[in-house]
Amino acid sequence: MTETKPSSTRGAFIVVEGGDGAGKTTQLDLLESWLRSRDVDCERTREPGGTPVGERIRSLVLEHGQGEVDPRTEALLFAASRAAHVVQRIGPALEAGSAVLCDRYVDSSVAYQGVGRGLGAEKIAELNGWATTGLQADLTILLDVDPTVSHQRRAGRDGGPGDRMESADDAFRTRIREAFLSRAAGEPERYLVIDAAQDPDAVHRQIRARVAALLPAGTGLATQEAPDD
Amino acid sequence: MTETKPSSTRGAFIVVEGGDGAGKTTQLDLLESWLRSRDVDCERTREPGGTPVGERIRSLVLEHGQGEVDPRTEALLFAASRAAHVVQRIGPALEAGSAVLCDRYVDSSVAYQGVGRGLGAEKIAELNGWATTGLQADLTILLDVDPTVSHQRRAGRDGGPGDRMESADDAFRTRIREAFLSRAAGEPERYLVIDAAQDPDAVHRQIRARVAALLPAGTGLATQEAPDD
Repeated sequence: MTETKPSSTRGAFIVVEGGDGAGKTTQLDLLESWLRSRDVDCERTREPGGTPVGERIRSLVLEHGQGEVDPRTEALLFAASRAAHVVQRIGPALEAGSAVLCDRYVDSSVAYQGVGRGLGAEKIAELNGWATTGLQADLTILLDVDPTVSHQRRAGRDGGPGDRMESADDAFRTRIREAFLSRAAGEPERYLVIDAAQDPDAVHRQIRARVAALLPAGTGLATQEAPDD
Repeated sequence: MTETKPSSTRGAFIVVEGGDGAGKTTQLDLLESWLRSRDVDCERTREPGGTPVGERIRSLVLEHGQGEVDPRTEALLFAASRAAHVVQRIGPALEAGSAVLCDRYVDSSVAYQGVGRGLGAEKIAELNGWATTGLQADLTILLDVDPTVSHQRRAGRDGGPGDRMESADDAFRTRIREAFLSRAAGEPERYLVIDAAQDPDAVHRQIRARVAALLPAGTGLATQEAPDD
C-alpha cells in the first residue's frame, strides 16, 4: 500500500465470532452478498490465515493437531498469524476504504487458548493487543449458542442421552461460550450478541440492521435499509 | 518423558550467543566433544528450531526472508518455536540429567527483534519469559566481536575502505553487540563474555574452565580438568 485515503473513508472492520457450528460461514456469506449488492467494497478473510505466512501457520497448527502443539506454542502461532494479517491485509484494506469481514479474531484466542486451554484470558488479550498493535474490530458479531441446548437436541435426534465424552465436551463448550459472552458484556458498544439458534434469515436481518448503522452515510446503507429488504 | 530424576541430577543448560561469524558452531563443537569425551550426556540443539514444529517455523521465517515477515510476526514465530523447544526438548533433557548445549536462545531475540528491529528489549524479554515459562540458561557464553575491528580487518584484506553499506551494517552489528553485552552485564553470574577475536583454542579453554565449575561434582569434571587438558 503506497496510497491511503483519509481516515473519514476508512472501512469498517467486522468480525464474526462463536463456537464451531454456530453458523459463522453462513452469516458471513449472507452479509458479504448483501454488502456487495449495495456496492460496498468487501475484503473477506479468516483466522488463523488470511496471508501467505498466516495460511502456512494455519496448516502447521492444524496438521500437528491439538495436543501435539502445546498451548503456549499454539497461542504464539495464532498471534503471529494475526500480526501478519493486520499488517499485510486488514490494515491496508481498511485504509483503502473496504469493509473487512473476518471469520474469528482476538476473541477466539482469548476464549480457546486463554480460557479453554488455561493460559489466562487477560494474558492472551494482552499478547494479542501487542500482536495487532491494538487494532480492534469496529463490530464483533457473536453468534451465541447454548451448548446444553444443542446437546439435548443432538441427544434427542440420536434417540438417547449423551455419553460422558459428550458431557465433557459440553462443559468445555460452556466455558468457551462464557468467555465470548464475558468479552461482549465488557464492551456492548462494540459487540452484537445474537441467539444463533434462530432461523439464519432472522439472524442475518439483525446483523444487517446493526451493520447498516455502522457504515459511512456516503454508502447510503442506513437509509436504503428497510426491515424486509 | 514419564521418568524424571531428582533435581540434584538435573542437567546444565548452556547457551552460546553472539553475532554471525563469532564462532558459535566451532565452540559448540569443541564443547560437545570435550563433554562427551568425559561421558557427560549432551543434547545439542539450536534456535529457531530444535523440534519438528520449531524446524517448520525456522524454514517458514527463513524462506520468506527478512522484510517480508514483519518484525512482530517474526518475534512471535521465534517465541513460538522457543516455547515448543522448552516443552518438548530442553526441559525433558534437563530433567533426564543431560547437559543441553543450545545455539542461540532468548538473548538473540532480545538483540535482533527487540533492539535490531526496534520492538523494544524489555517487551521481547517479557514475551520470551512467558514463552519459556521463565526457563533461563544456567550459563550463557557470549562470543563477543567488535564489528568495527572485524570491518577494518575485512577492509584491509580486500585492499580498500568499506563502502557505505558496510558502514550501515557495522552500525547495526554494533547495536546488536551492545544489546548482548547489556544483557550479560545485568547478570554476570549467568554469563561468560569472551573476546571471540582470540584463537578458537584459547576461547575453548576459557569455556571449558567455566563449564567444568558448573557441572555436578559427580561428573568429576571440576577435578579432572587441567589447564592444558
